[in-house]
Amino acid sequence: MGLFSKDIKTIDDLFTHTLRDVYDAENQILKALPGMAEKASDLRLKDVFEQHLGETEDRLRRLENVFQILGVTPKGVKCPAIDGILEEADDVSGETADEAVLDAALIASAQAVAHYAIARYGALFAWAKALGREECAQLLSETLAEEKNADRNLSSLAEGRINRKAA
Amino acid sequence: MGLFSKDIKTIDDLFTHTLRDVYDAENQILKALPGMAEKASDLRLKDVFEQHLGETEDRLRRLENVFQILGVTPKGVKCPAIDGILEEADDVSGETADEAVLDAALIASAQAVAHYAIARYGALFAWAKALGREECAQLLSETLAEEKNADRNLSSLAEGRINRKAA
Repeated sequence: MGLFSKDIKTIDDLFTHTLRDVYDAENQILKALPGMAEKASDLRLKDVFEQHLGETEDRLRRLENVFQILGVTPKGVKCPAIDGILEEADDVSGETADEAVLDAALIASAQAVAHYAIARYGALFAWAKALGREECAQLLSETLAEEKNADRNLSSLAEGRINRKAA
Repeated sequence: MGLFSKDIKTIDDLFTHTLRDVYDAENQILKALPGMAEKASDLRLKDVFEQHLGETEDRLRRLENVFQILGVTPKGVKCPAIDGILEEADDVSGETADEAVLDAALIASAQAVAHYAIARYGALFAWAKALGREECAQLLSETLAEEKNADRNLSSLAEGRINRKAA
């Protein structure tokens, strides 16, 4: 959609636009995760990032299913939010000298990514319900639950060992 | 801190860097909120944005308290994440023609902002605890609770009336 051409006229348009936004975001995350796994020192954290990679592929498939249900071509739109979040993740990790501190920074960056996804899938789920699109809502709620779970697991890992190693 | 100069050597450095990041973010949010309130049509939503404005000022004061406890000058560092989130909010609202749909989009944008804050204050709170900085942890937990509450209120408003009006 062209910027400032007022292409979003209905909640259906907003729903499709936001689906395209997260489709781009998930593709950007898919590209960023191997680098984050590589930078991590803690083996458990490396595993978590590798597991997220597989989950991100599942989420892209689920989004493609939603596009198919809507009869809309799966494609992304530029997502300045995820670009900024990943740029910040890259800046901070580039500035961090100590391995254990870098692990703490990587977890915080991954949680910023997870929270962006929670906000976006939360809105998409609510709009799907308002539009009576139950099948879409079901697919989106699976991803939403997965993202909330990923955020909780990252918190446990940070509080259970990573932050103590870094402090 | 200069990018790529590896200025973050300890978790204290990461804590200070992230405080500066959210200090910049809160200042950007303070500038963006009046525009969001102005664009909103629903009077209840306008009120929510105006209330957030006051809360953002409180959060800046709390961050200044934390800087003072640490003996560090309160200042921001460039925060590409909030820049991207607010740029996206602006793009989407600029593309939206219908008033009720714009309200739904504004709520979703505000929730993306709230979730960024939840992620950042969550990490800051965990690091303050790991560093044994109880007074800082207390101040950060107040803001964290406020942001989670703001997110819940936005969800209730969206699901209770805004999304139905837009659908």
